[in-house]
Amino acid sequence: MHSVKFTNNKLFYLDQTKLPKKEVWRSCRTIKSGWKAIKDLKVRGAPLIGVFAAYCICIHLDKLSKTKSIFFKQLKQSFDYLKSSRPTAVNLFWALDRLAKVSLENEQKTVKQIKKDIVKEAKDIHRQDIETCSQLSNYGATLIKNNESILTHCNTGFLATSGQGTALGVIFQAKKQGKNPTVYVDETRPLLQGARLTAWELKKKKVNSFLITDSSAAYLMQNKMIDKIFLGADRITALGDTANKIGTYSLAVLAKYHKIPFYVVAPLSTFDLNLKKGKDIAIEQRDQKEVKEILGQTLICPRETKAVNFAFDITPSKFIKAIVTDRGIVYPPYKKNIEKLIK
Amino acid sequence: MHSVKFTNNKLFYLDQTKLPKKEVWRSCRTIKSGWKAIKDLKVRGAPLIGVFAAYCICIHLDKLSKTKSIFFKQLKQSFDYLKSSRPTAVNLFWALDRLAKVSLENEQKTVKQIKKDIVKEAKDIHRQDIETCSQLSNYGATLIKNNESILTHCNTGFLATSGQGTALGVIFQAKKQGKNPTVYVDETRPLLQGARLTAWELKKKKVNSFLITDSSAAYLMQNKMIDKIFLGADRITALGDTANKIGTYSLAVLAKYHKIPFYVVAPLSTFDLNLKKGKDIAIEQRDQKEVKEILGQTLICPRETKAVNFAFDITPSKFIKAIVTDRGIVYPPYKKNIEKLIK
Repeated sequence: MHSVKFTNNKLFYLDQTKLPKKEVWRSCRTIKSGWKAIKDLKVRGAPLIGVFAAYCICIHLDKLSKTKSIFFKQLKQSFDYLKSSRPTAVNLFWALDRLAKVSLENEQKTVKQIKKDIVKEAKDIHRQDIETCSQLSNYGATLIKNNESILTHCNTGFLATSGQGTALGVIFQAKKQGKNPTVYVDETRPLLQGARLTAWELKKKKVNSFLITDSSAAYLMQNKMIDKIFLGADRITALGDTANKIGTYSLAVLAKYHKIPFYVVAPLSTFDLNLKKGKDIAIEQRDQKEVKEILGQTLICPRETKAVNFAFDITPSKFIKAIVTDRGIVYPPYKKNIEKLIK
Repeated sequence: MHSVKFTNNKLFYLDQTKLPKKEVWRSCRTIKSGWKAIKDLKVRGAPLIGVFAAYCICIHLDKLSKTKSIFFKQLKQSFDYLKSSRPTAVNLFWALDRLAKVSLENEQKTVKQIKKDIVKEAKDIHRQDIETCSQLSNYGATLIKNNESILTHCNTGFLATSGQGTALGVIFQAKKQGKNPTVYVDETRPLLQGARLTAWELKKKKVNSFLITDSSAAYLMQNKMIDKIFLGADRITALGDTANKIGTYSLAVLAKYHKIPFYVVAPLSTFDLNLKKGKDIAIEQRDQKEVKEILGQTLICPRETKAVNFAFDITPSKFIKAIVTDRGIVYPPYKKNIEKLIK
């Protein structure tokens, strides 16, 4: 189960906007169509965007100059262009910066060789993401006991990564270990990643699960139907503040009040130590149509109504019980322990 | 602006499931079609359901026996039948109990006269609901200052009542008084009463307003975009615990954490002093299709996915800053002050 393929220098992706109705694979032939696939959320999920963007560079290399100085200028432009697709998740920037670093470290080589090094690095990023998912899933599963009920938000499984996922990877791992988790999935308005993608993944993996509206989560917590919360992250600062899908902060405050452990699951590539606090993270505001028209199909309010559409929110670290990474579980104090982890 | 009409013993209602696309008025000719209109939320809003159910009895009176003993038996059956349409909002029960009381108080009269008394009482309930809305709107508007931003949930305006509304009535009153409120409206999944009905009412009344997804409310609170929260109630117990549309409890906890005043607005008929605590209130669970299929049109998850659909939740009184009623504003301690209010 995967959602991006790169074979013989050809890039394919599963169009996630068509799920769960249809499994449509598309070919991505140009950097421009790659940019649009990210922008339109056909390819989504912080770790997956990183892998996909790296491959978008690979399929674009043929179009770049053979003259080294021009090549480097064009390469930089390509990185900047892809980075402009989505501002919040850091993995996109991280993956492209890895390619940039490799190209600069091998500056003395021929352009042809540098291109080969870039492709190799992209494949490494892909391979590592798969491993990373296994590692953090293993760490995270140690936090789940038999027959627990887990709440999750948005999508963090094999659609959002190249591997088995982050938060959902942890749940799949617990399931594999025979712990029999029950999962409540927030539908995750406006774009319904929980209903469309997570419910679909849980069904594929035969995990006992229930779909709920986002605003029901508090009622379930009040009625002791939730033991733990696991969700992903798009960017984590040096202090542990976390940007994630809109609705995450709401769950964090509610979990704190109901004394329910709230776990963030993310690979090391999600940490951005250049930023200290959550408020330093750029929050993407998307088209108000995503709120007004459900999946671009059903208008739910008067045409003239204005809507506000913040795609992400910030959860201060004090709400987070622990951050599960591929290098182990990080507990507070986050500043110190994140520093130790990354070094 | 109104949503139920009773003229020449004929009952009409605005089909709220068709809004905001179309304004469809329907004739309600039988008690059975009235029951279904309530069940299917064509007629909705706690106070309006009370008024409408009373009129459903009126249009049914012709079908009842002229023999007094049989008449009373049939009348009781009709009350019980209508009461089975929706369990949570108490106004339905309150209105029908008023008709029952009038019929029993006039037991010595002819059946024909008793029927007349029932119709008179139903019209009184209607008239009083209009007055009630004006009164509580006036009280509530004193709580709003110039240029404040108000968050509201579900629909509590002229569609949910016979008058100008409860929580939304307060906002309309503030607007009339030139206080220039800005309103953020939760879309209110699963049935989108906020998007479909409240956004439509706010547009009609030219109130500056923005639609948001339910899970964005916390982010707006965190970013100091919300000054106050006003919403309605379906039932309020002797201790002030309040049943209201699912999502209300979530907002209450979030408001407490962000120190944002959380006001409940409801007529006296919403108080149920037979119940002490919120957990005594029956919570309606509705068809999972309402979660899985948006407005019965768009399936948002795999067909096999199971969903949980609690239609209401309970907000403990400790989260409520004050309850605005048609007899004034009630502050804690609620047990004592609600008792004083109702006496």
